[in-house]
Amino acid sequence: MTDVKTYMHELGKTARAASREMARASTAQKNAALLKMAELIEANMDALKTANVNDVETAVSKGMDAAFIDRLTLSDKAVHTMVAGLKQVAELPDPIGQMSNFKPLPSGINVGQMRVPLGVIGIIYESRPNVTIDAAALCIKSGNATILRGGSEALNSNQALAQIVQEGLSHAGLPASAVQVVNTADRAAVGELITMTDYVDVIVPRGGKSLIERLMNDARVPMIKHLDGICHTYVDVAADLEKAIKVCDNAKTQRYAPCNTMETLLVHSEIADQVLPDLCKIYQDKGVELRVDTPTKTTLEAAGFTDLVDATEDDWSTEYLAPILSIKTVTNLDAAIEHINHYGSAHTDAIVTENHSTAQRFLREVDSSSVMVNASTRFADGFEYGLGAEIGISNDKLHARGPVGLDGLTSLKYIVFGDGNIRV
Amino acid sequence: MTDVKTYMHELGKTARAASREMARASTAQKNAALLKMAELIEANMDALKTANVNDVETAVSKGMDAAFIDRLTLSDKAVHTMVAGLKQVAELPDPIGQMSNFKPLPSGINVGQMRVPLGVIGIIYESRPNVTIDAAALCIKSGNATILRGGSEALNSNQALAQIVQEGLSHAGLPASAVQVVNTADRAAVGELITMTDYVDVIVPRGGKSLIERLMNDARVPMIKHLDGICHTYVDVAADLEKAIKVCDNAKTQRYAPCNTMETLLVHSEIADQVLPDLCKIYQDKGVELRVDTPTKTTLEAAGFTDLVDATEDDWSTEYLAPILSIKTVTNLDAAIEHINHYGSAHTDAIVTENHSTAQRFLREVDSSSVMVNASTRFADGFEYGLGAEIGISNDKLHARGPVGLDGLTSLKYIVFGDGNIRV
Repeated sequence: MTDVKTYMHELGKTARAASREMARASTAQKNAALLKMAELIEANMDALKTANVNDVETAVSKGMDAAFIDRLTLSDKAVHTMVAGLKQVAELPDPIGQMSNFKPLPSGINVGQMRVPLGVIGIIYESRPNVTIDAAALCIKSGNATILRGGSEALNSNQALAQIVQEGLSHAGLPASAVQVVNTADRAAVGELITMTDYVDVIVPRGGKSLIERLMNDARVPMIKHLDGICHTYVDVAADLEKAIKVCDNAKTQRYAPCNTMETLLVHSEIADQVLPDLCKIYQDKGVELRVDTPTKTTLEAAGFTDLVDATEDDWSTEYLAPILSIKTVTNLDAAIEHINHYGSAHTDAIVTENHSTAQRFLREVDSSSVMVNASTRFADGFEYGLGAEIGISNDKLHARGPVGLDGLTSLKYIVFGDGNIRV
Repeated sequence: MTDVKTYMHELGKTARAASREMARASTAQKNAALLKMAELIEANMDALKTANVNDVETAVSKGMDAAFIDRLTLSDKAVHTMVAGLKQVAELPDPIGQMSNFKPLPSGINVGQMRVPLGVIGIIYESRPNVTIDAAALCIKSGNATILRGGSEALNSNQALAQIVQEGLSHAGLPASAVQVVNTADRAAVGELITMTDYVDVIVPRGGKSLIERLMNDARVPMIKHLDGICHTYVDVAADLEKAIKVCDNAKTQRYAPCNTMETLLVHSEIADQVLPDLCKIYQDKGVELRVDTPTKTTLEAAGFTDLVDATEDDWSTEYLAPILSIKTVTNLDAAIEHINHYGSAHTDAIVTENHSTAQRFLREVDSSSVMVNASTRFADGFEYGLGAEIGISNDKLHARGPVGLDGLTSLKYIVFGDGNIRV
């Protein structure tokens, strides 16, 4: 325990020192590091796979399930995606050093803001080795140092990738220690990482709800995180039926597992019998289980539906991540907004309506990180929002909210230009 | 203890409900509430003073010192400043509902951001009743609900002011419970306020370092805060001597107690004998005690100075808030930046230089919430920065950094406009 503490504090001190160098790194240096990493990954494909096979074989022998093994495996496709990702991040504009919002003031000073790195970012993730490269790339481009703590089952893969990252950094004249991978499976390492407030400025956890809940209990370093995605679509009385069906189908069925998939559909009572039968036929044809409140059940049964499950109170606050959808009929916009603000997770919520004023009220009053009009909740994503990349999605309100790209890993400091000005 | 918990959770629930109404309040309503409050303060001056006299008499009988009594007393001037502050906040532009950064994307959606309130803000302050009005005004204008916890010695004054605030809100058709003043002197109330993460979105502590350190240990709700202001001015080798002396004099002596007052002066060794004698004469004439390192002592003694104190290691990290200044001679820009990043408090630091590249490096590499060129650190202030008002200064990196005005009490959510768009 003491050893892990000493080890982690050493990583922290080293990261803090490296962060100063990264803060003044030029865009050219940072891009050179990223492109060298891409080159090295391609050149060392065999060695990477050997390291990864070690991890996979151990995981198989421990009886991990197929989905786990799938995430752990560095397939050709996974490797090519990492390489493409590095090149893409290299092409993004460098946020660091951007100056904006200048305003000359009556005292004679000129006040503006400069975008600067956060400093040291701790990333905690499960056994997906590709996160090592994705996260390192975003931290490098945003001028931060980072300490990466991947799942213990990916230790060999992550060490092999870390070596490539560090070679890339050195090649570009940047400190190799700007990206450090925690080299111990001891869980106490995580406990240190999330409480070293002197050395770590922010923690980005990448993983399931149980991981994040555990971290939230003990962390003293602030986190950029979202706990779950209980996303809603509300079909308003003024909805265009065709758009409603297209958007609600996509929001639920395009993929079931992502956090931005719709989990609860809200329908205005006066349009329920026009929208629900056609839409629910699509859902049932695709094998989606429907958990409905009493008015919805009445509407659907009148249209000949069977196989409906009665929704319980728990259904309104459950993230299924599966082909299951809860449906509730509401009598007006206020009831829809109230339901979302009460049961939702402040992730992403959408309205389908042609009414301008209704759309404006929904946008303003639904207290979520992304609010949409006539679009599928599945769009809530850094790439779809044009951020170029994302480190995660935040449904907290402070600092970064919604999909978090490079800007979310930076901060604005005030800068003041004077000419010998004094305060009177 | 259980009673305080129940009481505070009740305040929290009420505040959360009121925050929904405040989020949709119109600018006209919010301004009407502020102007009514100003009117009511003037109309109820006598009653306010009676309540305040009660508090002051109790504090005097408890033997509180003169500075404490001064902060507690609602003088005519303090009352007029509150009234003027309310009118000023009413005149500021309403940040809520501002939409910006729209970008049409290849998928056909149009993504932008909308500025929205944070929700519920907890303010913890000492026995300065005017903070009750200042903080309430900023929270109302930014569409937030707030729970105010002032010093127990100001309980009567704060309750009288709270009644005026609530009358102002009701007059404008807003929920009176949008501003609640904690009505118990029990310290357990603070413990609840800073841990009620379900009901409180952010805590703004207004007070000295000891208060904030105590809160930091126990808080689970994020805070917008600064612990201390160890501000530096670095006089570079390329400084204009006249500007250097003017700026350094002002940064230290314009007022001694504020957090943005300079505590340590750094001087480049090659210019030390040109700048220090004239500047230190001003300091000594004003009664400022000088705590100096050895090279500085040599320079000053050669110029005939006496009464110099040898600086100890502790001096470099001490916020004096008094007519004391530590001075260190450094051999280059790197040493100055390193000293500031090591010993400073990331509040406000300035350089005096005519060299463009040196200024740029200082701006980029000094890791503080405000960094200045050729200007007095005393400018670090919401009013001087043109924010119109300030709730405090943050030297954290996440969310708000530097002087925090109305925008710091808000958040940006993503909004997406579609026309039936789906993700493919």
